[in-house]
Amino acid sequence: MARPMGPVRLRRTNYVTLSIGAALCIFIIYFLTSPGGHSRSTTKHSSPIPKPSHKVRRDVQRFDLNKVTITNDPVGNKEKILILTPMARFYQEYWDNLVKLNYPHELITLGFILPKSKEGNAATTALQAQITKTQKGARPFRKVIIERQDFEPPLASQDESERHKLANQKDRRAAMSKARNSLLFTTLGPDTSWVLWLDADIVETPPTLIQDLASHNKDLIVPNCFQRYTDDSGKLAERAYDFNSWQDSNTAQELAATMGPEDLLLEGYEELPTYRTLMAYMELEDMNDVRAEVPLDGVGGTALLVKADVHRDGAMFPPFPFYHLIETEGFAKMARRLGWHATGLPNYKVYHYNE
Amino acid sequence: MARPMGPVRLRRTNYVTLSIGAALCIFIIYFLTSPGGHSRSTTKHSSPIPKPSHKVRRDVQRFDLNKVTITNDPVGNKEKILILTPMARFYQEYWDNLVKLNYPHELITLGFILPKSKEGNAATTALQAQITKTQKGARPFRKVIIERQDFEPPLASQDESERHKLANQKDRRAAMSKARNSLLFTTLGPDTSWVLWLDADIVETPPTLIQDLASHNKDLIVPNCFQRYTDDSGKLAERAYDFNSWQDSNTAQELAATMGPEDLLLEGYEELPTYRTLMAYMELEDMNDVRAEVPLDGVGGTALLVKADVHRDGAMFPPFPFYHLIETEGFAKMARRLGWHATGLPNYKVYHYNE
Repeated sequence: MARPMGPVRLRRTNYVTLSIGAALCIFIIYFLTSPGGHSRSTTKHSSPIPKPSHKVRRDVQRFDLNKVTITNDPVGNKEKILILTPMARFYQEYWDNLVKLNYPHELITLGFILPKSKEGNAATTALQAQITKTQKGARPFRKVIIERQDFEPPLASQDESERHKLANQKDRRAAMSKARNSLLFTTLGPDTSWVLWLDADIVETPPTLIQDLASHNKDLIVPNCFQRYTDDSGKLAERAYDFNSWQDSNTAQELAATMGPEDLLLEGYEELPTYRTLMAYMELEDMNDVRAEVPLDGVGGTALLVKADVHRDGAMFPPFPFYHLIETEGFAKMARRLGWHATGLPNYKVYHYNE
Repeated sequence: MARPMGPVRLRRTNYVTLSIGAALCIFIIYFLTSPGGHSRSTTKHSSPIPKPSHKVRRDVQRFDLNKVTITNDPVGNKEKILILTPMARFYQEYWDNLVKLNYPHELITLGFILPKSKEGNAATTALQAQITKTQKGARPFRKVIIERQDFEPPLASQDESERHKLANQKDRRAAMSKARNSLLFTTLGPDTSWVLWLDADIVETPPTLIQDLASHNKDLIVPNCFQRYTDDSGKLAERAYDFNSWQDSNTAQELAATMGPEDLLLEGYEELPTYRTLMAYMELEDMNDVRAEVPLDGVGGTALLVKADVHRDGAMFPPFPFYHLIETEGFAKMARRLGWHATGLPNYKVYHYNE
């Protein structure tokens, strides 16, 4: 399989080391909705006195879900949304924005995965405190699932001088892919209509995010991820942040053709000039129509709405080079192999935390 | 991407047609275990009179699953097993064999997926009748999930004369891959330790199947699938049935190197002499040691025990050519890319229905 390779050749990552001994340590908190909500709790007693049918109902439960729909009117059709967030640090602004989403909370399940590091422990504690508060409030979510996962040996044990940025990126995104897959495979239900991937550092979106994205009725749809900052003159400004949403180029295709099977064609590196068309820069051209759509070949995962059928068909986040792509960009390619298309909204913006 | 291809060139399947309009029509039957079992029912009242903690307990449920283990002693460690079966026809012998498995039933969740065809409807009816009977009996399973799924347009609408067997195989196995993925993605839980893939036409296994396979503590492990029949002289005999479990060969690798990206290197076809070492024929060499292990590169799915972490890392059944492999064989390759290894047990046999 070896081929002569140019300067873009990356060090081959040892996925075995990465995986073996991976300890999936999970704990789940199910915060069920209040009694008035759309709870799927298995034995629900509206009264403490058992009704005549009680004995049968406790042993056998049937859910006729023939009418699971995925439409451009998810609120009208009461479509269930799964919001998935891999989380290394907890940002209060993320939670505040999440809680402000005005999609019916009783239709939203939240899924989190956090590393078992010191930082992950702190994030879990902060997250749980907010969940408890929200679930006791007026608009609790349908369900909340928290998973903890860690890899042995830890990814940090690398000789930095030995590895240049691109190789680090490969490891980081392989680990992130596995975290996303773990979360996805264990939380997706047969009655889920949409999956919203929402990164833990997304701190500002329109409150109508889910409805807005779903209204386009696309297989995969991704807004443009920007970042607010203060410029040198002290004025508030914003800049493009996520460069993983792009349209492919001939240059990138030709570059890929010269690569070895383990090589990645990553975006945003000087060493790899791909000349792909980045959605991050499309926004600047015409800022008027927030509903403007562009077809995409790669997508970022900071905020990404996916029809649940795309995942159910098998589309996951490849932790290995898949057509020289990994993680969310590899996911877009895998979805494409399954017959699904990615769409971007260059003028519809969400904002990333500014460290 | 086009390359000159030899006689092995397959007709390119239109996965878009296959996928678009795919109607995922699902209904679930949760048969909870009897009150004495390991029910995860969310609100369980041992008495009709609420206890003091009742109000809090109904809204908030916590599952501490830090101790999810995957070991060679799954019974001792009370490890939860998910048995997944894609089912086109219902065989009573399959059910009878399943019920006889002596792994603790309260640790077993069953998941089925059936097509929405006339045949699928009949199978669902028969299956449900047996589930009801079993769940009312002395050894109910922890949970049973039934899913219905169909593709539009149906796969049958093909001009048979236009397509040779290999191409049909590609379509059939792509559809089967998607069915397996749908079932897997919607039933795998964070607390599942093992997934046993068990085809609906497997009618005879040792009752200790799960314990036997798990005792090897392998990432993926597959017994040898045979078929009983009556030979010409009227004597009972048996023959190899599943040829998807194999060790790769140089010939197959060289053949793959000449193939186009959409081509499949399938096993068991005269047109494609791979000279792979088939587990089906290894059994004949030494029948004494049922615990004898061989490393495998491809696996069949008639009976296949997988550590849940393999799936949680992202390993699914590729419905598209993945290293020229598809479905269960592609799954073994994908697991390998994720750092997991496949093992075969040539002398440990399970039996396929004889039509």
